Amino acid sequence: MFVHPERRDAHVDKHRRRQCPRRAHCGHWYKTEAPVSRKALRETGGVALELDTNRLSDKYRKMQRTIRSPMMQPLVSAGMGMAPFFKVTVFEQEHFQGRCQEFTAECCNIQDCGFDNIRSVRVESGAWVGFEHHDFQGQQFVLERGEYPHWDAYSGNLSYHVERMMSFRPIYCASHQSSRMMIFEKENFLGRSVELCEDYPSLQAMGWCNNEVGSMHVQCGAFVCYQYPGYRGQQYIMECERHSGDYQHWRNWGSHCQTPQIQSIRRIQH
Amino acid sequence: MFVHPERRDAHVDKHRRRQCPRRAHCGHWYKTEAPVSRKALRETGGVALELDTNRLSDKYRKMQRTIRSPMMQPLVSAGMGMAPFFKVTVFEQEHFQGRCQEFTAECCNIQDCGFDNIRSVRVESGAWVGFEHHDFQGQQFVLERGEYPHWDAYSGNLSYHVERMMSFRPIYCASHQSSRMMIFEKENFLGRSVELCEDYPSLQAMGWCNNEVGSMHVQCGAFVCYQYPGYRGQQYIMECERHSGDYQHWRNWGSHCQTPQIQSIRRIQH
Repeated sequence: MFVHPERRDAHVDKHRRRQCPRRAHCGHWYKTEAPVSRKALRETGGVALELDTNRLSDKYRKMQRTIRSPMMQPLVSAGMGMAPFFKVTVFEQEHFQGRCQEFTAECCNIQDCGFDNIRSVRVESGAWVGFEHHDFQGQQFVLERGEYPHWDAYSGNLSYHVERMMSFRPIYCASHQSSRMMIFEKENFLGRSVELCEDYPSLQAMGWCNNEVGSMHVQCGAFVCYQYPGYRGQQYIMECERHSGDYQHWRNWGSHCQTPQIQSIRRIQH
Repeated sequence: MFVHPERRDAHVDKHRRRQCPRRAHCGHWYKTEAPVSRKALRETGGVALELDTNRLSDKYRKMQRTIRSPMMQPLVSAGMGMAPFFKVTVFEQEHFQGRCQEFTAECCNIQDCGFDNIRSVRVESGAWVGFEHHDFQGQQFVLERGEYPHWDAYSGNLSYHVERMMSFRPIYCASHQSSRMMIFEKENFLGRSVELCEDYPSLQAMGWCNNEVGSMHVQCGAFVCYQYPGYRGQQYIMECERHSGDYQHWRNWGSHCQTPQIQSIRRIQH
């Protein structure tokens, strides 16, 4: 990994994260006393009551790791000289035009925020996954830091051409350096298997037996699997913290998945 | 890298290649005494007179490294128990249907082989680059081992939708483990710079200053640069053996390049 001089602060942040509890790596967390309405979250930009994880007991920290709810929001620390860990700006029109909104946590339906669709995205921090439908359903798109000026830029999949992204969420468990998963030839973790801990633009070039994967188990981190070699086609996001990392049949890979065909796999990085 | 038990022969081949001269890594090379007509190459599957590089003088080997012509063809060693190093099968129809032909070396115009277009591709060995137009012009597509059942599968780029692949060639200098390049903020190798020797799905996440690259120098191996994060959008193949590895302005990245925007870069592997 290289660290540009002007981004040294980000490198320090990463170093700091390694020393902190896993889910507390943005320094501070916010939590509400009661469930927050979508409208309230929209008005506050997804931020509510402050809660410093450094002061939390181990028991409470563990609970934080297992519960995912709109109540848990990383801090937008504009005035504190620290970049927020998860931050994305979505735009209603292409090329970063029209109505826009910043998010620092998941959004389960962009229409509840007054958008009819998302047509461009700027990811400022963290790795995210976008979904074709609301409530994290349908085609998946991994979104890493950078600019996506139109649907084509973040989809990368031409064979199923619906220009929609209606929900998105952070990939909390992405961990580029320590990602590890097993792939199996057959469903239910049967048949030949191999452990992966790098990026594989062609599974077959690296020795995998065919163009399909029967089942998978993600031990650490998060991966994105692709239908075709060279990171093309349908994407399936696989996380160690979803389904306990177990994906025992291709029907579990996503609500849009219609085939066990997987020809390239890579780690997701923040 | 993992090695599947059934693919151990391929691993042995790779090991053998490391001990051989760089361009002689498929064991044997074939060369004709005189330039070969396209028709003759088509009839022989791109193979002509035998020439064993192990018997070549150093001077001749050096010449082999610098000259690229249709005369130099890696061996299709069907009866020798060794996988050929570069092998691709192209099909006139989608899903590996219709007229097809195997190639073990470059093809500068698929229409000279009687095809009107390529609509599906099966890469069996090596890394290749496909081009939108004949004579290696226009949009570029990196092709690694695996199956590409339609244009969508090997393009990965929606914003410039022309379903054509009219020429292709092997990427001889691809070397996954020892690839190294420098990227520069401005053209002519000026401004801030960084050395890359891994895969970077988001240059900005790794510390690069913006969404553009001014110029590049490839020291070893070959890379593919992408317009958008996560290996999406326009592709530009950068090789240490083309232009001496120097790409001093975005106009040198390819005849289709219209912008210095690059947001992800990865090594090309065989």
